[in-house]
Order: sequence, then structure tokens, then C-alpha cells
Amino acid sequence: MRAAYYVGDHSFSVETVEPVALGDDEVRVDVAYCGICGTDMHVYHGAMDARVGAHRVIGHEMSGIVAALGPQVTGLEVGDPVVIRPLAACGDCPACHRGHVHICQNLKFLGLDTDGAFQQSWTVPAHTVHKIPADLPLQNAALVEPVAVACHDVRRSRLVAGEDVLVIGGGPIGMLIAMVAKSAGANVALSEVNPSRLELARSLGFATLDPTQVDVAKACYESTGGKGADVIFEVSGTQAGVDAMTEAAATRCRIVMVAIHSQKPQVDLFKFFWREIEMLGARVYEARDYEQAIAMVASGAIDCKAMITDVRDLEHIGEAFAALAENNQAMKSLIKCS
Amino acid sequence: MRAAYYVGDHSFSVETVEPVALGDDEVRVDVAYCGICGTDMHVYHGAMDARVGAHRVIGHEMSGIVAALGPQVTGLEVGDPVVIRPLAACGDCPACHRGHVHICQNLKFLGLDTDGAFQQSWTVPAHTVHKIPADLPLQNAALVEPVAVACHDVRRSRLVAGEDVLVIGGGPIGMLIAMVAKSAGANVALSEVNPSRLELARSLGFATLDPTQVDVAKACYESTGGKGADVIFEVSGTQAGVDAMTEAAATRCRIVMVAIHSQKPQVDLFKFFWREIEMLGARVYEARDYEQAIAMVASGAIDCKAMITDVRDLEHIGEAFAALAENNQAMKSLIKCS
Repeated sequence: MRAAYYVGDHSFSVETVEPVALGDDEVRVDVAYCGICGTDMHVYHGAMDARVGAHRVIGHEMSGIVAALGPQVTGLEVGDPVVIRPLAACGDCPACHRGHVHICQNLKFLGLDTDGAFQQSWTVPAHTVHKIPADLPLQNAALVEPVAVACHDVRRSRLVAGEDVLVIGGGPIGMLIAMVAKSAGANVALSEVNPSRLELARSLGFATLDPTQVDVAKACYESTGGKGADVIFEVSGTQAGVDAMTEAAATRCRIVMVAIHSQKPQVDLFKFFWREIEMLGARVYEARDYEQAIAMVASGAIDCKAMITDVRDLEHIGEAFAALAENNQAMKSLIKCS
Repeated sequence: MRAAYYVGDHSFSVETVEPVALGDDEVRVDVAYCGICGTDMHVYHGAMDARVGAHRVIGHEMSGIVAALGPQVTGLEVGDPVVIRPLAACGDCPACHRGHVHICQNLKFLGLDTDGAFQQSWTVPAHTVHKIPADLPLQNAALVEPVAVACHDVRRSRLVAGEDVLVIGGGPIGMLIAMVAKSAGANVALSEVNPSRLELARSLGFATLDPTQVDVAKACYESTGGKGADVIFEVSGTQAGVDAMTEAAATRCRIVMVAIHSQKPQVDLFKFFWREIEMLGARVYEARDYEQAIAMVASGAIDCKAMITDVRDLEHIGEAFAALAENNQAMKSLIKCS
């Protein structure tokens, strides 16, 4: 079978290898499609070489078909269409003991800390497998992983129908959060500077705010009768986004910190005190987020067509990454692995 | 009667005035004791002149006896010992409409936006009055207001018995938070740089951490089996405190933002994401916090003797403020107004 190895310095080597031996509790999945995540782009740019090394199959936003089962695996059959929740917890750290296995203090992320899904056949622990409906197109199912991120973010916000939501940042995750929040009955506005992303957000029915043209906080206050946003998702990873999140917040607003801030931005903690604002970090997903994401992709609540920018074969993975690195209008690029 | 007016530039003028006319829904209280709050010190130093003006009776941490009742007031009698919850909400802003009247968007704070309690007789809206037990010493009752702040902070944290708490900053509010948290069954450590405050904290039975001597986060991890603090109260108002709060946090830690940060500190938002940390702003108190505070002061759960540093007469209010400005070891200075 063919497997695409990241080998450092913006390069992949697509090689013919034997599938890894199947453990008792493992499942071998023939990968259908695998999307390129922002994290994969970080790997591509060399920012995670210390973690992934120089010969690693990355990729985790995948869909596929069960090809083989270890002898102790139950509840699955060869031929089942599945997606993989790519997390392996240690089970024995303080976070795991409290049930927060998805943010285990020793968490292994499949496709970074172990080989991932940019290959034709992927062997994974059985507990990571989620069955999907037989009639769910496998291209769309490759979106389940990022949709599960969005479901987790919205779950953390305790959003209820009718609330006013501001999503700061309209990349793939911001756009999916907006879809999940809208599906939950929220009034969603999305703040973004990129014109093509703003256009996409408008076409999907979201109110849009371009911070280069309007005062985002003022616009939020005006559209909510002086209240401000009940729930804010900071997905921009920028100082400007962090400024906007406190400025646009209603009293007792819940801010969900989705973005990965590699620098420590300045935060208006006085505003947190004054308005009793709440901020909640949100990372990856739990099993229930995966189940919700599968249901939302299957039902059409997620507009998969709008989210999938292009599809390339595994042999052309290098071109796919290079193209995505140049394209700030893209949402999801998929690799066809089968 | 005598009333002490802040008249600007570190000065008070104690004057003989008539009590203000009593409205239908108002209560006149003969003030027994009134403590000096950190906010009062800010006024003293001129930092709030734009808000309070140059002829304002400040003070709000008080106890007293009901002296007269407006004709529409029910449930109170002349002679009742009381404390005042010094908040007046507008009742008609988005925060009030959602029930968050204590952080009303047009909140008036009695003793800043209206005349306060550094006078012999204080006329207040009846809804601000809380009766206290007849056998509760009025000196101790003057601590109810800051204890209610601590009760509100701990309530916001959703603290449960057995959790590991870190209080960053051992001033009066930090010390009271530590007492309330300990009373709720928490394991409390207090971080502070001032040796006399550290000594007081130790004498009250708290584990102490001096960040000039130890790595606070490392100490927290070591004392909690690698978990970190479940609940952290940031009461220092410093960049160092803000750094420590994310460093010492357990997975899903709740950080309560108590301090007033007049600058925007840098915050490790990556850590919020990575460990799904939560931060909650907490400001003043609700009626139920006052009732809890009264019960805790009355029961002895609050060590009032340790908290009251000195008592001076109203005529010597200027000396009391000047002494407190020079004394970084003091907890609460009370003014005897009767």
C-alpha cells in the first residue's frame, strides 16, 4: 500500500510499505479521504519537527472503511464505514482520573505522535472508531473531525437558542462553529478580514463584520439593543481578535478560547471583572462531540459543499499542501487516499 | 450630626450637617462602624475624583442601627441592627433584564456615586438593608461587606469540598477568600510577598507560598500530585499573579478574576486552550452573598479579630487614611461613627 511521509522542509515522500501489524484491540481502516488541517500545515512549515520527526505519516481528518479487525474487537464488521477520533489518553493522569480523557496530560494525537491517515491503510485502536451511516458520502465524512471541534466549542459555551453569537475569525473552524451555533438556534455574526471568506459567510446566511470597515464591538451592541454578544468564539489567534472579544461582550458573556495563541496577548481583565465575563478554553473533542458531528454532517446541517475546496490524489499530496499554503481563500482541501 | 467629606487631595472635612430628608422607601441608619476599603483608598489618592467629586461622603463597609423608616418601608423596625448592601440598579438595562442586577450596566454604588457611610446617620433605599443578629458585635458586622465580596468570589468558582485552592494575593479580600474557601472544605494555599501578611496567613492555618522564595506553580503541582490547583483566585492585580494563575492551574481549573487590573496584562491564552481552563470575572455581591456573609461573621467562621487592625473615631478619619496609606501590613481599619 502507499503511504505519504512528511520528511521535513515542506516535503512528502509517497512510499510503498506494508500495513502495520494488527494488534488484538486494533482496527485496520482503508482510508477514503483525509482533509488537511491547520495543524498539518504547521507540520508542513516545519514548526512541529521536534514532535513529529522527519519520517511521519500525518493527517487525521479522515473517513474510511473497516478492512480488518483484531481478535478482541467487538461491535464492528469489515466493510463498516467509519471515522476515527484520533486521541489516545494515558488513563492514569489527574485529568484522566477526573474524566477529562480528551485533554489527558499525556495525550497522544494520532497522526502527529503516531502515524496518521495520509496513507491507504491506517491501523488504529478500536476505541477511536466511530461508525457512520452507510449513505453518508465519504468525502463529506472527512469533515466530521473538524465539525466535532466546532461541536465541542459550542458545547463548552452552553449556548441556548436565541442567543447572540459572535465568531471572531472565519477560517474553516470559525465557519463550522458558525454553522453549529446557527443550527442550535443562535443569531450568528462572523468577523473576518478576508473578503472571500466574508463572501462565503454571507452566502451561508451569517451576518458579517469586517473589522477593517466597521467597529465590531459597536456593531454588536447596536444589533443587540445595547447588550453585546452572549457568546463569543475567539478563533482568530490575533491581538485584534482578543481586543474585540472583551469589547463586544455582554454582561456574563461566555467567551470560548478556540484559537492557539502562540504569543501571550494583552487581555482586558478589568472587563472580565466589571461585566463578570467568563472565558472557557476548548480543545479537540469528546466522543459525544463526534456523534453529534456525524449526525450534523449526515443531516445536511453542515454545508459540506461550501466547505470542501478541492480534492487531490495521495500521490499529489505535496502539490495539495503547496497550493493550500498559497491560497488564503480555501476552506478544506481533501486528499483521496483510496 | 457629623459627616466626613472627602474634599480632594488626601483630605477630609468633618462637618456638622442635617441628615438628608427621608424618602418613602428609605431607611435612616445610625452608623456604628465603617471600614476603609481599597476603593476608598483609591478615592483618597485622587484616582476617582472625576467620579466622586470634591465634596463626597465615601465609605460603605458599615454596620449600624435603624433610626427612622420611610412610610412605605416594611419588615424593619427602629432599633434593628443592620448592614447595607450598597448597590442601586437601574432595573431596565440588559444586565438587569437578565437578573444580574448587582452588575447593572448603570449601577450606582452608594458611597461613591451617592453619599456613603463615613457619617453618623446614613439614609439609604430600603432594598439595600440586611438585618443582622442582635448579638453580633457591630465592629465585626462592619466586615460583612468585604466578606460578601469573598462569598461571591467563592460562589462564582463553584468550589466543592476537598478541592485545592490557590489564592494569589493576601490583602484583606484575598485573606477573606481564603477563609471562606477553607470554610467550604477546600485545601487553601495563599501566595503573597509581604512577610507580615504571610505570617498572618500562616497563623490562620493556610499553607503559604512566597513567590520571592519558591516557584508557586511548581509548589502547587508538587502538593497536588501533579494535578495543579482546581480553583485559583487572582487577587494580586499584577502581571506576576496573572502568570502564576495559568502556570499553577489544573486541567479545567476555574480561575476567578477578583483583582482590578487597570493595565491589560499578558495572558497565556494557549494554556487556557490546552488545559480547558475557565476564567470567571467576579464583582461585588448579590443579596444571597450578604446573607451568607452575615451568617459566617456571626458563626465565627470569619476570624474578625485577625482582620481588624485598628479603630479610630470619625473625627480622626484623615489620620486613619494617612496611617493606612503608610501601612502595608494592615488588614482592616475601622472608623467608629457613632
